[in-house]
Amino acid sequence: MTRIAFVGLGIMGLPMAKNLVRAGHEVVGYNRSEAKRGKLADAGGTAAGSVPEAVRGAEVVITMLPDSPDVEAVVLGREGVLDSAGRGTLLVDMSTIAPATARTVAQRASEAGLRALDAPVSGGEQGAVDGTLSIMVGGERAHFDAALPLLEVLGATVVHVGPAGAGQTVKAANQLIVAGTIQLVAEALTYLDAQAVELEPAVRVLSGGLAGSAVLERKATGMLAREFTPGFRVDLHHKDLGIVVDSAREAGVVVPLGAVVAQLMAAARAQGLGELDHSALLLGVERLCGRSSD
Amino acid sequence: MTRIAFVGLGIMGLPMAKNLVRAGHEVVGYNRSEAKRGKLADAGGTAAGSVPEAVRGAEVVITMLPDSPDVEAVVLGREGVLDSAGRGTLLVDMSTIAPATARTVAQRASEAGLRALDAPVSGGEQGAVDGTLSIMVGGERAHFDAALPLLEVLGATVVHVGPAGAGQTVKAANQLIVAGTIQLVAEALTYLDAQAVELEPAVRVLSGGLAGSAVLERKATGMLAREFTPGFRVDLHHKDLGIVVDSAREAGVVVPLGAVVAQLMAAARAQGLGELDHSALLLGVERLCGRSSD
Amino acid sequence: MTRIAFVGLGIMGLPMAKNLVRAGHEVVGYNRSEAKRGKLADAGGTAAGSVPEAVRGAEVVITMLPDSPDVEAVVLGREGVLDSAGRGTLLVDMSTIAPATARTVAQRASEAGLRALDAPVSGGEQGAVDGTLSIMVGGERAHFDAALPLLEVLGATVVHVGPAGAGQTVKAANQLIVAGTIQLVAEALTYLDAQAVELEPAVRVLSGGLAGSAVLERKATGMLAREFTPGFRVDLHHKDLGIVVDSAREAGVVVPLGAVVAQLMAAARAQGLGELDHSALLLGVERLCGRSSD
Amino acid sequence: MTRIAFVGLGIMGLPMAKNLVRAGHEVVGYNRSEAKRGKLADAGGTAAGSVPEAVRGAEVVITMLPDSPDVEAVVLGREGVLDSAGRGTLLVDMSTIAPATARTVAQRASEAGLRALDAPVSGGEQGAVDGTLSIMVGGERAHFDAALPLLEVLGATVVHVGPAGAGQTVKAANQLIVAGTIQLVAEALTYLDAQAVELEPAVRVLSGGLAGSAVLERKATGMLAREFTPGFRVDLHHKDLGIVVDSAREAGVVVPLGAVVAQLMAAARAQGLGELDHSALLLGVERLCGRSSD
Ligand SMILES: NC(=O)C1=CN([C@@H]2O[C@H](COP(=O)(O)OP(=O)(O)OC[C@H]3O[C@@H](n4cnc5c(N)ncnc54)[C@H](OP(=O)(O)O)[C@@H]3O)[C@@H](O)[C@H]2O)C=CC1
Ligand SMILES: NC(=O)C1=CN([C@@H]2O[C@H](COP(=O)(O)OP(=O)(O)OC[C@H]3O[C@@H](n4cnc5c(N)ncnc54)[C@H](OP(=O)(O)O)[C@@H]3O)[C@@H](O)[C@H]2O)C=CC1
Ligand SMILES: NC(=O)C1=CN([C@@H]2O[C@H](COP(=O)(O)OP(=O)(O)OC[C@H]3O[C@@H](n4cnc5c(N)ncnc54)[C@H](OP(=O)(O)O)[C@@H]3O)[C@@H](O)[C@H]2O)C=CC1
Repeated sequence: MTRIAFVGLGIMGLPMAKNLVRAGHEVVGYNRSEAKRGKLADAGGTAAGSVPEAVRGAEVVITMLPDSPDVEAVVLGREGVLDSAGRGTLLVDMSTIAPATARTVAQRASEAGLRALDAPVSGGEQGAVDGTLSIMVGGERAHFDAALPLLEVLGATVVHVGPAGAGQTVKAANQLIVAGTIQLVAEALTYLDAQAVELEPAVRVLSGGLAGSAVLERKATGMLAREFTPGFRVDLHHKDLGIVVDSAREAGVVVPLGAVVAQLMAAARAQGLGELDHSALLLGVERLCGRSSD
Repeated sequence: MTRIAFVGLGIMGLPMAKNLVRAGHEVVGYNRSEAKRGKLADAGGTAAGSVPEAVRGAEVVITMLPDSPDVEAVVLGREGVLDSAGRGTLLVDMSTIAPATARTVAQRASEAGLRALDAPVSGGEQGAVDGTLSIMVGGERAHFDAALPLLEVLGATVVHVGPAGAGQTVKAANQLIVAGTIQLVAEALTYLDAQAVELEPAVRVLSGGLAGSAVLERKATGMLAREFTPGFRVDLHHKDLGIVVDSAREAGVVVPLGAVVAQLMAAARAQGLGELDHSALLLGVERLCGRSSD
Repeated sequence: MTRIAFVGLGIMGLPMAKNLVRAGHEVVGYNRSEAKRGKLADAGGTAAGSVPEAVRGAEVVITMLPDSPDVEAVVLGREGVLDSAGRGTLLVDMSTIAPATARTVAQRASEAGLRALDAPVSGGEQGAVDGTLSIMVGGERAHFDAALPLLEVLGATVVHVGPAGAGQTVKAANQLIVAGTIQLVAEALTYLDAQAVELEPAVRVLSGGLAGSAVLERKATGMLAREFTPGFRVDLHHKDLGIVVDSAREAGVVVPLGAVVAQLMAAARAQGLGELDHSALLLGVERLCGRSSD
Repeated sequence: MTRIAFVGLGIMGLPMAKNLVRAGHEVVGYNRSEAKRGKLADAGGTAAGSVPEAVRGAEVVITMLPDSPDVEAVVLGREGVLDSAGRGTLLVDMSTIAPATARTVAQRASEAGLRALDAPVSGGEQGAVDGTLSIMVGGERAHFDAALPLLEVLGATVVHVGPAGAGQTVKAANQLIVAGTIQLVAEALTYLDAQAVELEPAVRVLSGGLAGSAVLERKATGMLAREFTPGFRVDLHHKDLGIVVDSAREAGVVVPLGAVVAQLMAAARAQGLGELDHSALLLGVERLCGRSSD
């Protein structure tokens, strides 16, 4: 049994924290809005009234927050994790944030005597509920080994991919490929539809060959049915593509398709599709082609 | 047993024709260079000295040629298939050509009393040898039904996707998605490599989630090993992306990622990588980033 | 005085033919629709009932037709210019068509004993009326010298830019730059408008520096006033960008911005803006951003 | 005569400060490296040993620094301008930085009782030396009126374009258009060169029509001569395109060409061309096409 502080009890964080409770750990949760803390308490965890209260005495601190500034505030800020946690505490940030921020957090944590990992996830709300997330971890191998038993409660695939920031970098690469593949499928479906092709057999034959992908398998049916309930929201993917484009620039890497799909995701959002599933890139293509009925 | 004329005995056509021989059909092959015809004869087929000689008396004519102008010449040209084939002959063009050309061929064939299908394939040389190609077929359903027994000798997945030209349209969509996915993976790998990420575990975790694809599964290892023996050549994929961009323009469909990846494939070719596997798009990205050692 | 056959009496062709009449030449015009021929006759020219009738006895044949297939039909086709014109006739095609077609026309004309030039124009209807077109001419220098006195009736800037096809190549480059610059200005104006910048002083200061261009000077005011009466239609520019992208592919040249702007022009057209001035690319950007009131 | 503190005496700042001295003002300059301060003293100004020393007693503070973090450090940081300047001081930041940073600076300055303007420039070193810069100013109109006499010493076109940040927004739009136009010209020249067109007459005829631009006029000759001494460096333009892409994202504006040219500028930099003039985008296009001899 480990004493765990869990900060950020949102769509992803709450079911993850519950899984840790279920696995027999002592979980003290914090979230600004009280309602969500209550849900953790109902599930057998403990609700704390502040970050310091949650963190004090914890052996492991997990954060699952929206974006880089939130992690900076919660970890580095006043009355933040670094101010309150004891030396040697393992800090595992599982939010999707900028690699550069992850590196800063790791550096500052290390200066404060903590052991830090960046461990963003993929697999969505369902994966969080089922404990089947993919988790890509950056940081020292020894810290990874220490965190592994807990991470295996949360995910089915837990992989160490390099030093501090590497987890976020892999997550960014993941988001680049996913957005790009959705857009390619959206272009292909629109192209086929405009030319009197029967879409369901077409998708079947495309899936069977080198064009096959998890996107085609899991998203194409919804796209054809025009069913865009998230899943993963355009707004969040837009945030993540901002991370991709900015960190590629910092790293001196050129990502032409990444840059274009970032624009198209931004367009979907600007057109008011931010709350839909990212597969709504299809609507963006249809509007570009004047083929939209929406 | 069916009497089949097979025109175009190249990398793909020869093993396909051999599979038809092996399945018990009478196959008369024609190819301009004599050497290749000889190989068909060695395998139990018959070598013809001209298109008319091959086609005369055939119940089914299969063509497997490089590009649209070749199909136009062989089928529509002087001493071509339409001039020589008997009424009712089933003409199955399995080359990858422009949908517009496929529609013209079907129209002209129908005027000449033939029944035409466009039936391009994916799966590569290996799929041709193994008889496991994916075959996407456009044309009348009745013609498709008539051709199906033969096509099932050649492929594992044989799907009717719509009227004349629809097979080529689906093949074009396939090539759009494949090229785009390779480019996305190339951008992602370069991005990861520039930031000290361990590439093999990264590829493993990417493959397991929504970023997973046949490209990642079959091509990433070769890309990491810098092994670019084709497979499918950049030169051919460049031709196919020309078809995608042009036919999208004719159909009034906008394909922003398609257009950009067509430029990047053109760049790879212009840089002298045309004979390599299309996964050599990775070299293109590395050169853009000044990271190439080649 | 020269005897000139003029084929294609549309928006551009009619005023050009009239200018030649006014300069004292004998102009016999042909156009399929009779109404337009009549207008030339009213202006002192002669209306012919067919291409052969117009061309017979002409020293110079000028064509001003919509697109490559039209020029192929009128010049190379049955009862076309090559069939009817006498040896030594000077053939000046002033339509905007593919460089490859221009080279074929020149080749075939030369085989028929004619002297051919490609001489596309820029400057629009106003330039045609005023005789102030820019004319970019490809073909043999001696033919250019022979045509120069007539071309100077039609244009203010008449430049020999290289061998057969070179005129069309320069025109294509022109269309690439113009479309791209309009799109850049459209992106910039939308970007400024979204951030509470006063647009008129902004355009003034942008025009004064390295961002200055003929597009900014002549088109920005109309864009701000949302006045999109052509000028040069999106439909025609779409045709021309097809030429750019295709001929760049043939020439092994990579044009990333050209390819993207070709998609955006195609989008404008697909969205029903084809009849508007090409500066309506602004509407395309606004729709992408969800900022459109149209 | 006004007492002016001038912080940042680099390529742009030093000649600007000298022009103010020449116009009769008392200029106290600061720069971290002593050598540059000395040059201002030689020209009749005064060298200060620190920001506070320069700023104390100044009626106007002008900053001309490389990037957003530098301005944040010098203005907002410890011993920065806000700490040292008297209430009512006019702060004019003429650096090219992010609009969001400019808004923060203005807000913080106003809280500290200062009057702030963002006033970035275009026109390059030559414009700075000659006092002919274009200056785009954001902030309150009254502050603009107060600064105008000094700004007119530095620039030939001084325009108020909106509230705080608007100057930087217009400058970003300027950089978007300039980079895009250079890239378009680079693509066009490469396209022409690959097709045996004579480049000098081609540039002449392109310049005369709607494709004409300040870029074509001032940069094409250098590009043809392969003369890439800056002028404005690729590295700086890369910084500025980062500002464009990021601030467009914040503003919900989609800039497809902007995003692609940002990638191409990043590529030029990554390939080691950062110290060359931004017209070296031409080399990037040539390398993409395998046409480079460099
Ligand atoms: N949703 C998905 O499918 C996936 C999401 N992700 C990533 O996981 C992360 C979390 O996403 P998700 O759970 O969907 O987001 P949510 O917005 O649902 O959850 C974030 C939680 O953080 C809390 N929070 C924000 N700021 C603070 C603060 N200063 N102190 C304490 N709590 C705070 C919020 O609650 P409150 O405001 O009340 O404090 C909220 O409950 C993101 O980085 C996302 O990109 C990764 C994979 C899939
Ligand atoms: N409009 C502009 O601003 C500019 C146009 N251009 C280029 O100039 C060319 C002409 O453009 P524009 O004048 O605007 O086009 P129009 O469509 O107005 O004119 C084309 C004319 O060609 C005639 N035509 C078409 N086919 C034939 C045929 N087979 N035999 C005889 N006549 C034929 C048409 O008349 P009918 O169908 O009755 O025969 C029509 O009058 C195009 O290539 C365009 O891209 C260049 C610069 C600017
Ligand atoms: N160069 C050009 O053609 C143009 C440039 N611009 C913009 O103008 C700005 C300045 O450019 P440029 O003059 O070329 O750049 P330089 O690098 O030549 O000059 C910047 C100066 O700032 C000084 N500096 C940096 N940090 C500090 C600090 N903390 N305290 C005091 N001084 C500091 C540097 O000197 P030191 O490090 O010794 O302190 C240096 O002299 C940039 O934002 C640029 O984008 C705009 C238009 C054209």
